[in-house]
Amino acid sequence: MNKKIILSGMRPTGKLHIGHFTGALENWVALQGEYLNYHLIADYHTLTTSLDTSMVFEDSVEMAIDWIACGINPDKSPVFRQSQIKQHTELFLILSMLITKARLEKNPTLKEQIRDMNLQSVTYGHLGYPVLQAADILLYKGELVPVGEDQVPHVEITRQIAGVFNERYTGINGKLIFPVPEPMITKFARLPGLDGKAKMSKSLDNTILISDNECNIKAKIKKAYTDPNKLRKGDKGNPDICLVYTYHKKFNEPELSQIRDGCASGTLGCFDCKMNVASKISDYFLPVREKRLILENNKNHVLEILIEGEKKARVIAENTMKEVRESMKLG
Amino acid sequence: MNKKIILSGMRPTGKLHIGHFTGALENWVALQGEYLNYHLIADYHTLTTSLDTSMVFEDSVEMAIDWIACGINPDKSPVFRQSQIKQHTELFLILSMLITKARLEKNPTLKEQIRDMNLQSVTYGHLGYPVLQAADILLYKGELVPVGEDQVPHVEITRQIAGVFNERYTGINGKLIFPVPEPMITKFARLPGLDGKAKMSKSLDNTILISDNECNIKAKIKKAYTDPNKLRKGDKGNPDICLVYTYHKKFNEPELSQIRDGCASGTLGCFDCKMNVASKISDYFLPVREKRLILENNKNHVLEILIEGEKKARVIAENTMKEVRESMKLG
Repeated sequence: MNKKIILSGMRPTGKLHIGHFTGALENWVALQGEYLNYHLIADYHTLTTSLDTSMVFEDSVEMAIDWIACGINPDKSPVFRQSQIKQHTELFLILSMLITKARLEKNPTLKEQIRDMNLQSVTYGHLGYPVLQAADILLYKGELVPVGEDQVPHVEITRQIAGVFNERYTGINGKLIFPVPEPMITKFARLPGLDGKAKMSKSLDNTILISDNECNIKAKIKKAYTDPNKLRKGDKGNPDICLVYTYHKKFNEPELSQIRDGCASGTLGCFDCKMNVASKISDYFLPVREKRLILENNKNHVLEILIEGEKKARVIAENTMKEVRESMKLG
Repeated sequence: MNKKIILSGMRPTGKLHIGHFTGALENWVALQGEYLNYHLIADYHTLTTSLDTSMVFEDSVEMAIDWIACGINPDKSPVFRQSQIKQHTELFLILSMLITKARLEKNPTLKEQIRDMNLQSVTYGHLGYPVLQAADILLYKGELVPVGEDQVPHVEITRQIAGVFNERYTGINGKLIFPVPEPMITKFARLPGLDGKAKMSKSLDNTILISDNECNIKAKIKKAYTDPNKLRKGDKGNPDICLVYTYHKKFNEPELSQIRDGCASGTLGCFDCKMNVASKISDYFLPVREKRLILENNKNHVLEILIEGEKKARVIAENTMKEVRESMKLG
């Protein structure tokens, strides 16, 4: 039986934080056995919100290191940079003709980005990033796209575009060129940031990196937001509003009830509680850091892995484009 | 001294009409000696207004035949199909990030097309066609773009995009990657259609084709619109409102005053006047038709010419993209 095809990707933002891990990467690693996964480093996408490309190459390599260190197996699941597979741009142009401007303007994520990033204007390319995502997915004939709830509108746009293409152009013997991909909704264990904000984010400077060592993690967590009514050991705290407690939930499940009781009764102080979870996070990522170190010291090897992944991806992408060109009698 | 680079192109609409000749092609042929010209068959552009691609290949070949028969020398001026040079799509994606949606929405030609074609909605790709044109021009480092007045806004968009790119990214030693192209405004000898409408257009079915033989031309001109007050020979006519007289102006200059007098005095009847200009048009394009016939009977040779042009164009395009990628450290 053929394995179903999954396409997942991230924009290269350099070293990843543990929110990336719990929110996506952990899930990707788990899916590797059952599915055929393509892992896209979406470097062209960075242009939609910043024209500063000076670090895109380095950031891509750092991200690949995190992926692989966390368990993505590039032999099973090709890891590759979008910008190295020019077929993405060819399919982007073609798909851009299959969706209206009005439909893209309704994309809720675009509206959020404009608000969150306080953008004065939207570039043409930014408006079209769901079209580029559609190309990313359809180029590999992705059948499933692991996304959080907030990304479902993008998959909807991809589904619509695939439908329009299939209705208009067909392969030999009426064969449909594209599968209509399904969103595979991941229950995001989204980690809040160290400042208590809902999301870890590089730009908010509230992250713990996957690559942070124990000392870094402790220093960062020391400053983390906790129940503001619990000022010192002895004060009774409310773990349900404590950020540190959410970290315990993820990384220290065995001690959870003990932590909850200690916090609520006041016998556990915040400092000890923080140092405890910092150790657990550090322990959790220790094997990742060890693997990371080896890769970091051999970036040429990482680049070879990418180039290898790109070779594989390019073959698939070119096969798809051959079908597209034939079905359209164009290109 | 290096010749300046000109980029000119048309969407493939199949066999061209004599309005294409007087409006653009004649000028392109004249410019071939003094400039380095690239002649683009803009086949991707057809998608912006129609998804029916079934005839694009055939239409492209027919258009190339007309170009060459009219005097475009493919050895001097490469003739090539846009869809065969994938670098157009790569540069399109990149340039799409350098211009706002709002700027493209202001494009007056888009508004005209929406009105004229009675479009219910605009696709994302249609909105972006001036960006694709910018890629077409900048890929070959076009310095001059021969256009009519109505196309100047597009060249403006290309100029703006080139400026933004050059400001943001530079080559080795600060070298600018793109020239900022100038419009080369052609005084269009725009031929009105046979129905008296301002423009010949395939969709209006009011054209004389470059490939029409004398018999066709006579049959078409017989039905042409003339001064409605001149019903029969002997009636006095007004050549200034007569479509046929505009054709005489272009193709029968030596007899012009004689025609004008005959029409105004009534001694010249419309039928004779029409048959006369039909002969002149036919004579004018006779050598073109002869050359056309040879090419038409050897379409493989035409395809070879295109493939040859595409090889040349691809080398230039890839060189430009190498510079673009290096300057951006991306791709």
